[in-house]
Amino acid sequence: MKKLSINADRLWSSLMELAKVGAYKDERTGLMGVNRLALTAADGEGRRLVKKWFEEAGLQVRVDRIGNVYARRKGGGDKEPVLSGSHIDSVPTGGAFDGALGVLGALEVARTLDEARVTTSRPFEVAFFTEEEGCRFGTDMLGSAVAVGRIPLEKAYAIKDKNGLAVKDELEKIGFLGTHDERLAAPHAYVECHIEQGPILRAANMELGVVTGVQAISWQEVTIQGKSAHAGTTPMGLRKDAGVAAARLCVRMNEMATSGRYGAEMRATMGGFDPYPGLVNIVPGRARVTVDLRNPDDAAMAQAEKDLAAFMKQLEKDMGVTIEARQTARTGRVHFSTDVQAVLARKMKDAGHVFQHIISGAGHDAQEMASLCPTAMIFVPGEYDGISHNPREYSTPEQCARGVGILLDSVVELLG
Amino acid sequence: MKKLSINADRLWSSLMELAKVGAYKDERTGLMGVNRLALTAADGEGRRLVKKWFEEAGLQVRVDRIGNVYARRKGGGDKEPVLSGSHIDSVPTGGAFDGALGVLGALEVARTLDEARVTTSRPFEVAFFTEEEGCRFGTDMLGSAVAVGRIPLEKAYAIKDKNGLAVKDELEKIGFLGTHDERLAAPHAYVECHIEQGPILRAANMELGVVTGVQAISWQEVTIQGKSAHAGTTPMGLRKDAGVAAARLCVRMNEMATSGRYGAEMRATMGGFDPYPGLVNIVPGRARVTVDLRNPDDAAMAQAEKDLAAFMKQLEKDMGVTIEARQTARTGRVHFSTDVQAVLARKMKDAGHVFQHIISGAGHDAQEMASLCPTAMIFVPGEYDGISHNPREYSTPEQCARGVGILLDSVVELLG
Repeated sequence: MKKLSINADRLWSSLMELAKVGAYKDERTGLMGVNRLALTAADGEGRRLVKKWFEEAGLQVRVDRIGNVYARRKGGGDKEPVLSGSHIDSVPTGGAFDGALGVLGALEVARTLDEARVTTSRPFEVAFFTEEEGCRFGTDMLGSAVAVGRIPLEKAYAIKDKNGLAVKDELEKIGFLGTHDERLAAPHAYVECHIEQGPILRAANMELGVVTGVQAISWQEVTIQGKSAHAGTTPMGLRKDAGVAAARLCVRMNEMATSGRYGAEMRATMGGFDPYPGLVNIVPGRARVTVDLRNPDDAAMAQAEKDLAAFMKQLEKDMGVTIEARQTARTGRVHFSTDVQAVLARKMKDAGHVFQHIISGAGHDAQEMASLCPTAMIFVPGEYDGISHNPREYSTPEQCARGVGILLDSVVELLG
Repeated sequence: MKKLSINADRLWSSLMELAKVGAYKDERTGLMGVNRLALTAADGEGRRLVKKWFEEAGLQVRVDRIGNVYARRKGGGDKEPVLSGSHIDSVPTGGAFDGALGVLGALEVARTLDEARVTTSRPFEVAFFTEEEGCRFGTDMLGSAVAVGRIPLEKAYAIKDKNGLAVKDELEKIGFLGTHDERLAAPHAYVECHIEQGPILRAANMELGVVTGVQAISWQEVTIQGKSAHAGTTPMGLRKDAGVAAARLCVRMNEMATSGRYGAEMRATMGGFDPYPGLVNIVPGRARVTVDLRNPDDAAMAQAEKDLAAFMKQLEKDMGVTIEARQTARTGRVHFSTDVQAVLARKMKDAGHVFQHIISGAGHDAQEMASLCPTAMIFVPGEYDGISHNPREYSTPEQCARGVGILLDSVVELLG
């Protein structure tokens, strides 16, 4: 069989075409961003477009009961397929590459196999999973977590967004409440190509990364209840300022993450901070904040969570507030298959690419799949310090093609 | 002339009737609150109701070009009137008494004079002023500041709310863009009855307070520009987290106010805290926060402002963010007339009330009037630690009647 190559122009065109769905103009920078929040009308439109492309590529499409979409290229009868994919939902302020590169990259692999009329000894499947970002319903990797059985279907269906709209109803509304079994039979292997979403590969002048696994991730939604009061008349000593308590929590998280006590890779972020009523002259009576902790070491993560909980108890005592912390997502450190990593590394070496092994700072559908079958990921570097979840998110056509080229080579070997 | 008495039931009915305009149910407590944000439809409805009451009381109503409403009871030909009033706009989460007590109290005084067919040697005027709260357009005491000439009319007209709607257009929309000269001719005296909006009188078992003046107030809107980044992949050392910078500013303000360095009465509040994009897994690239500083001493206030500005400079250096602070309101310490205070104190003593002198922690229309004529205020204590700007705001019918009774007695003396 002659060496196959992907069509880099076709890959790029697909990426740019999908980026038009949910496109918006960022006020401050004038750049175009992408807003395809999961199960919104824009997500529905993006899904229909990609599904149409699947069908045009001759793939057999099925939608499961949590809205995950699988597209199969036949091969080798009843054998387990090699699966590759990602997600097409975005954060509200996203870019053109996060998730889309993995889905359209896998589609490009299928298109390439088809053009070359290659027959394979296993089926190849392309997939995109529901609500990977977790920005709308608060639980990331929702679709893939249901597919591998970590989250029961009925529990996922009942999750509501902040407007009280439930996953099941929203799936139905956009026409993606499928009928196929949501529990995925174990594939032969899963490979996902994704942008790094961080600065490491670009700073080290690496062309690609072989992902060794995903760090532990802990999300909490924290509600602090204090006492609303007039900003001008209430003496400092009589206040129970929920905003100050939240600010102290934010500062403490930052100190923890930079202290080195939880390792050099500890990360802590308070992305959401919502005081009530949020007016200049009213002491906030309540504040809702989000907590995002990451650590490549499970024990260090557990210690950080424990220490943060203790600090909240201390804040309650010191400030007379009450604090309620709800865990909205929690995944431990995931180790990817060394066998699949070895295939990826060999293909990169054969292609003459400069690469390194790297742990993922972000959560990915691949970490769910890793519980079901041998799994690994390819990382593509990003420009501008690898900024992501932002309209500035950008990887060059060459960077994208390099990653998807390795995806093709690896999938061909895994298909046998 | 026999001793006049107000009709406490009529006063209470008016307060309860006006509270129905803009009423809403507070989700958490189930209590009814008031939302009559300035120049909204609800404010317009409240204004029409009170204007109707003015007219029914036989008062001559005029509306000026900034929407302040004056209602005159004739007396003593061309002499300067005694003026009494307050405001009927509310914060979005307000109660039934803030402002309304001063307006409906003054109306009750007019009604009482009328019933008793008292002729006075000066006119008596009742007034309510536009946008006292400053919650919608960002500048408090807007109407009274224009009336005394501190803020030029055209500048006030051009101020926009956060949706870009301008004061002039919004006045027109609700039908209160009047034609009368906005500059008020100096009255003989101004007296305002208001709830304390704080815990001091109630805690000291005082029935009333004679207000000696208003502390200095400084409002800023602070915008911190950092760099948006992925929460999972961006090492702590590479971040410019606008949310953490805002949290540090909040904690510092709180430390400053409780340090004693600016006197025991220094107060600092960060009521608004708005990170962008506000998502769990994105390091905030920008944060907008509000700063509210109060101090009864002008020099201490200036020092606090200076120290806070220096801290912002330090934050810029330490964190690589840029900080822009815009002053949205600034008033110095105001001293009320000792002559008017003496009248109020004598009337309270004569009526057998237990009272004390007190400085106001909140801003009031009276502080603007103080630049035009001898001015003072009567404070009525509030229940529940004097909570205000909140549906729990409550003064008893007896407390309200006591304050308005003293307002009547004092106005009668000042009218001569």
